[in-house]
Amino acid sequence: MQDFQSILDNIHKAARKQTAKGKVADYIPELSAVDPDKFGMTVLDSTKNVHSTGDAKENFSIQSISKVLALSMAMSHVGEKLWERVGVEPSGDPFNHLSLLEMENGIPRNPLINAGAIIVCDILVSRLENPTSAFLEYIRDIAGDSTIVYDEKVAKSEKRTGFRNYAAANLIKSFGNLENDVETVLDFYFHSCSLSMSCEQLVKVFYIFMNRGKCLRNNAHLTLSQVKRINAIMLTCGFYDEAGEFAFEVGLPGKSGVGGGIVALLPNKFCVATWAPGLNEKGNSKLGMWALEKLTTETGLSIF
Amino acid sequence: MQDFQSILDNIHKAARKQTAKGKVADYIPELSAVDPDKFGMTVLDSTKNVHSTGDAKENFSIQSISKVLALSMAMSHVGEKLWERVGVEPSGDPFNHLSLLEMENGIPRNPLINAGAIIVCDILVSRLENPTSAFLEYIRDIAGDSTIVYDEKVAKSEKRTGFRNYAAANLIKSFGNLENDVETVLDFYFHSCSLSMSCEQLVKVFYIFMNRGKCLRNNAHLTLSQVKRINAIMLTCGFYDEAGEFAFEVGLPGKSGVGGGIVALLPNKFCVATWAPGLNEKGNSKLGMWALEKLTTETGLSIF
Amino acid sequence: MQDFQSILDNIHKAARKQTAKGKVADYIPELSAVDPDKFGMTVLDSTKNVHSTGDAKENFSIQSISKVLALSMAMSHVGEKLWERVGVEPSGDPFNHLSLLEMENGIPRNPLINAGAIIVCDILVSRLENPTSAFLEYIRDIAGDSTIVYDEKVAKSEKRTGFRNYAAANLIKSFGNLENDVETVLDFYFHSCSLSMSCEQLVKVFYIFMNRGKCLRNNAHLTLSQVKRINAIMLTCGFYDEAGEFAFEVGLPGKSGVGGGIVALLPNKFCVATWAPGLNEKGNSKLGMWALEKLTTETGLSIF
Amino acid sequence: MQDFQSILDNIHKAARKQTAKGKVADYIPELSAVDPDKFGMTVLDSTKNVHSTGDAKENFSIQSISKVLALSMAMSHVGEKLWERVGVEPSGDPFNHLSLLEMENGIPRNPLINAGAIIVCDILVSRLENPTSAFLEYIRDIAGDSTIVYDEKVAKSEKRTGFRNYAAANLIKSFGNLENDVETVLDFYFHSCSLSMSCEQLVKVFYIFMNRGKCLRNNAHLTLSQVKRINAIMLTCGFYDEAGEFAFEVGLPGKSGVGGGIVALLPNKFCVATWAPGLNEKGNSKLGMWALEKLTTETGLSIF
Repeated sequence: MQDFQSILDNIHKAARKQTAKGKVADYIPELSAVDPDKFGMTVLDSTKNVHSTGDAKENFSIQSISKVLALSMAMSHVGEKLWERVGVEPSGDPFNHLSLLEMENGIPRNPLINAGAIIVCDILVSRLENPTSAFLEYIRDIAGDSTIVYDEKVAKSEKRTGFRNYAAANLIKSFGNLENDVETVLDFYFHSCSLSMSCEQLVKVFYIFMNRGKCLRNNAHLTLSQVKRINAIMLTCGFYDEAGEFAFEVGLPGKSGVGGGIVALLPNKFCVATWAPGLNEKGNSKLGMWALEKLTTETGLSIF
Repeated sequence: MQDFQSILDNIHKAARKQTAKGKVADYIPELSAVDPDKFGMTVLDSTKNVHSTGDAKENFSIQSISKVLALSMAMSHVGEKLWERVGVEPSGDPFNHLSLLEMENGIPRNPLINAGAIIVCDILVSRLENPTSAFLEYIRDIAGDSTIVYDEKVAKSEKRTGFRNYAAANLIKSFGNLENDVETVLDFYFHSCSLSMSCEQLVKVFYIFMNRGKCLRNNAHLTLSQVKRINAIMLTCGFYDEAGEFAFEVGLPGKSGVGGGIVALLPNKFCVATWAPGLNEKGNSKLGMWALEKLTTETGLSIF
Repeated sequence: MQDFQSILDNIHKAARKQTAKGKVADYIPELSAVDPDKFGMTVLDSTKNVHSTGDAKENFSIQSISKVLALSMAMSHVGEKLWERVGVEPSGDPFNHLSLLEMENGIPRNPLINAGAIIVCDILVSRLENPTSAFLEYIRDIAGDSTIVYDEKVAKSEKRTGFRNYAAANLIKSFGNLENDVETVLDFYFHSCSLSMSCEQLVKVFYIFMNRGKCLRNNAHLTLSQVKRINAIMLTCGFYDEAGEFAFEVGLPGKSGVGGGIVALLPNKFCVATWAPGLNEKGNSKLGMWALEKLTTETGLSIF
Repeated sequence: MQDFQSILDNIHKAARKQTAKGKVADYIPELSAVDPDKFGMTVLDSTKNVHSTGDAKENFSIQSISKVLALSMAMSHVGEKLWERVGVEPSGDPFNHLSLLEMENGIPRNPLINAGAIIVCDILVSRLENPTSAFLEYIRDIAGDSTIVYDEKVAKSEKRTGFRNYAAANLIKSFGNLENDVETVLDFYFHSCSLSMSCEQLVKVFYIFMNRGKCLRNNAHLTLSQVKRINAIMLTCGFYDEAGEFAFEVGLPGKSGVGGGIVALLPNKFCVATWAPGLNEKGNSKLGMWALEKLTTETGLSIF
C-alpha cells in the first residue's frame, strides 16, 4: 500500500512554491473570477480510502470532464451502437475542429471533443424525458452524493458565448447526424459542462472507471468492456492535443477541463483528481499535470 | 447593332430541343415544385431596348443572385471599407467552405459565397433601421418597379433547413466578425435570397452594372470604381467553383442562383438574364449556361 | 487610336517617383542580384506597332509567365484532352497547394499553378523528342526571334532549391498523374521557367493571345477557342491568390512571374508587358500592377 | 505466472479457423508474394522465457515496426532534443498526411508516421558514419543476434515506388527541417523498413521497451524516461488511425507494419510479436490484432 497521504502533502507543499501557474480561462466571467492560487488533490485508492490535500473539498466547474460522464451514461443506454455516430480515434487537431468535421461528413472523431460530446448529448436527449435532471441524478447516484449541482450562471454564460458550439451543432445537423433541435441539445450540453464538483466528489464518480464499472456502493453502472472502451478513449483523446505528452508524463487515462480540473485513474489501483485553475497553452491545468507527474513518478504507479 | 431578338428566338427554339436539362434544386419544397421545362431569356441593350423570349416575364426565386445586390447596397453605404471584413478572391473550394473560413479566421473569401454574403447582410443590418424592407425598396428603386416582392414561403423554408448557414454565421460570430445577432442577420439573409423576380426585372436591376452605376432612369447608384469592383468579383467568383469554366464558355461577369437564374453583362453593351430551373452538378443552370454561350458566340460579344 | 507612347512615357516618369517598390525575390542568387530600380514597359497594339519605355529591351527571368506558353504548346498538341489531367478553376489557395493536390487526388486546380504546370510539362515530355529545345524553338518561332534563350544558371539554381516542386511532382506521381520520371519532367519545367526575355520580346509572343491565335507573321498557332480558353484561365488564375484584385485594378487577362514581369492583353486591342523586380506580398510585381492599372484607367481599355 | 504457451497454442488453433484474413499488401512484388496463411506469434515473458507458436521463426518484412527502433537509436543519440524537429501527438489523419505536414510547417506530428520517421533517419544520417550498417549493428546488438539482415530487394522496390515518401521528404526539406540530401536520407529510410525479422527476433529487440531500457544481456540501451516516452508514443500513435481502437481491443503499447507484423508489450510483464500478412482496411494485420485481443483478454494482462 502506498502512503498516498504523505505523497499528496509533499506535492501540495511543492505546488505552493511553483510560480509558473498558467493562465485562468477567461472566456466567461464565472471562470475568470476563480482564484488562480487554488490547489486541491484527492486520491481514492482500491481500499476505498480517500486522501486529500489543499482545496480538495471546494467546488469548481468541471467543464469537459463531464464529457466522460455523458459518454458513460450514453453507453449504458445504447452500448456500442454509439460508434455509428461518433469515432474513437484522436482528432490530432489543435485548431480546426470544424474542418475535420466537415471533411468527415459530420462524424466527429471521438466523444471527448466538443462535436462528439454534442452527439452524445443528442443521444441522451432522444432517450431521456428530462435529460438535464436525469443526467444530474445519474451523477449523484454514482457518487452517492445528492449535493452535486449545476452552476446555472456558468451554463448561461457558456450558452451566450458558445458560437463555436452552435456552429458545430448546426454543421452536424446539416449532415443529418443530429436527431433533436440544436437549441435543445446545446441547452443540455451547456448544462452538463456546468457541473460544479470538488476533487473529492470527482474521484467518487470516476471510481467506476477504475473499479470495472462498479461504484463505491458496489452497484454496476457499466460493463467491464464499456469501462475499457472509455478508459482507452480517455488515454488517447482525453487531453485535447496533448494526449501524447500526458501519456508520457503521467501515463494514466484521464480527462481535463478548462475549469482547471483533471481526473485520472489506474485500473484497480487508484483514482485521482486535481484542481488548479491556471492552464497551459494547450488548455490543460499546468499545476494539475505537474502534480500528476509527481504522483506517478513517486508511486511508480502508471501504465508504463 | 446586333439583332438580339432573332438571336434570342433562335436560342429559345434550340433550347426546347435540349433534352439534358439538369436537376431542379430540391432541398426546399418551393424550389423542387418548379416546372423543369421553364425557359426564359431577356437582353437589355445599351439603347435601353428590352428583348425577351420564352418565360421571361415569369417570376422565379433569384436566390444567390441577390448576393450581388446586397453587395451593391453595402458598397454604396460603406465603400471599400467592406474589404476589411471579407475578401475579393475566388474560394476555389467546391466543398469545404467552413474549413477555409476556419483557417482564415472568420474572413470569408469573397462576398458571393454564403459566408461572405452573411457578412454583407450584417453590414446592412448595422446600418439600416429595417434592412428587410429597405433592401426591397433599394431593388424596387433601381428597377423602377414596385411590384418586386419577397417570397415569404421560400424565406421560411430556407430558414428551417439552413443549418449550414447557421453554422457559418456562428463560426463567423465566434471570430468576432459578426456585429449583430446570428438570428437577425440570417433572417435578413434568407429574405434577401427569397426575392422573386423575372428575367425582365433582373436585367433592369443589373443594368446599373453595365451602365457605370446608373439605372435606366439615369440615377447614379454606384461609382464607376464600385461597378468595376463588383464586375471583377462576379467574373472571378460568380459561379461557385465553375468560374473558370464560365469565363471560358461565356466570358462575361455574371451571377447564378440555385433557382435556375443567371444574370450576366458586357459593360456598356448589354445585360442578359436567363432562367431554366435544371442545374448542372456544380449548381449552375445547365440550359442557362448553354444559352449564354450561344449568345456570346453568335454576337461575338464577350470580354475575350 | 490611343496614343500609347505618351501614356507609357508618363507612367515611366511617375514610376520613377514611386518609393514603395516591393521586395525582389531572393530564393535564388540569380534573382536576388537584379537591380530593384529596373522598370520597363511595352505595348504592342492591334496595328502591330510597338511602344516602349524604360528598360523594355532588357532581358529578365520570365519565370511563371512561361506557364502560359507551355500551356499554349501543350494545347496545340492535345487540345481539350488536357483537361482530363488538370482543372481550369482558381485554386484560391494562398499557402497549402500540396494539401489541395492531395485532397483532389493529384489533379491540380489549373495549369498556372506549379503543380498544374508540371503536368503540362509532363505532357510535352511525352510528346516531344527533346522538349527543352523544342519548347525554345516554339517560343522563338512565335516571336520570330531566334535570340531568345534559357538562362542555364537560373535553371540550375531553381533545380537545386526546388524542393517544393519535387514534393509536388512526386505527389502527382504517387497518384499516377505523371507519365514520365520526376527528374526528367522537372528538368524541363525548371528550364521553361528560366526563359530570359525582354518586355519587347514578351509582347511579341503573347500577341497570339490578343490576335485570335495568330502571330505577328500571321501564322496560326492556336484556334480561337483555345485562345479564349487560355485567356479565361489567365483572367481567373493568372495572379496567384490576387486574381480578384488584379481583375478589379487592371481588368485584363494576364500572367505574372516572380522575376517581376507581367504580361496582359485586351483581345483585338493590345498586348502589354511590364518589368519591375520588386514584388508585393502576394508575389506579383508591385510597380507592374500599378503601371497596368494606370494604363487601363488612362486608356479606358479594360474588359470592364 | 501465466501459462503463455497453452494460450498461444489455443490462439494458433483458433486462428487457423478464421476465414476473414484481410488483404496482403500489394504495392511492391516482394510483399504481395507472401503466403496469406502464415501465422506466427511469440511471447517473451519477464523471466526471459520465449513461448512461440506457428511460423514464429520465419522472417518477414518488419516495415514500419522499424520506426520504433530508429526512434530508439536516435533518442539514445540526441535525447529529448529530438522533439524540436518532430511532435509526440497522434496525427489523427487517415489520408492527408502531407496536408498536415504543410500546415504545420514541416514538423511531422510524431516519429511513427512516415514523415516523422524520415526526420528520425535524417538525425541518424547526420550522426553516423554509415547509418545503414550502424543501424543494423544496433539492432543485432540489442537482439544479440548477428543473423538479422536487410532485404535489399524490398529496399529497392520501396525506393522505386516510394513517390509519396519522396514528396514528404522534399516538403520537409523545403521547410528547412531536413539536414541531409533527400536521396541519402530516403536510402537509409527504405533500408530500415526492409529489415527482415521473425517474431522471435522481434520480441528480443522489443524486450528493452518492457524491461526499462535493458536488453536480454542486461545492457542499458535507453533510460527509463526514454522508454516511457517511446511506449507512450507507441500507445497513442502506433497503429496509424486505429490507435484508439487498438488501445480498446488490446490495450498495450505497440507498433504494426504493412508486412503483417505487430509487436506490443506490457511493461515489466511481457513482450509479444505476431505475424499474419493479411491487413484490415486501416493497414494493420487483421489476425494479428485479433490474436493480441485474445491474449490480453485471456491473460487479463493489459494496461486497462
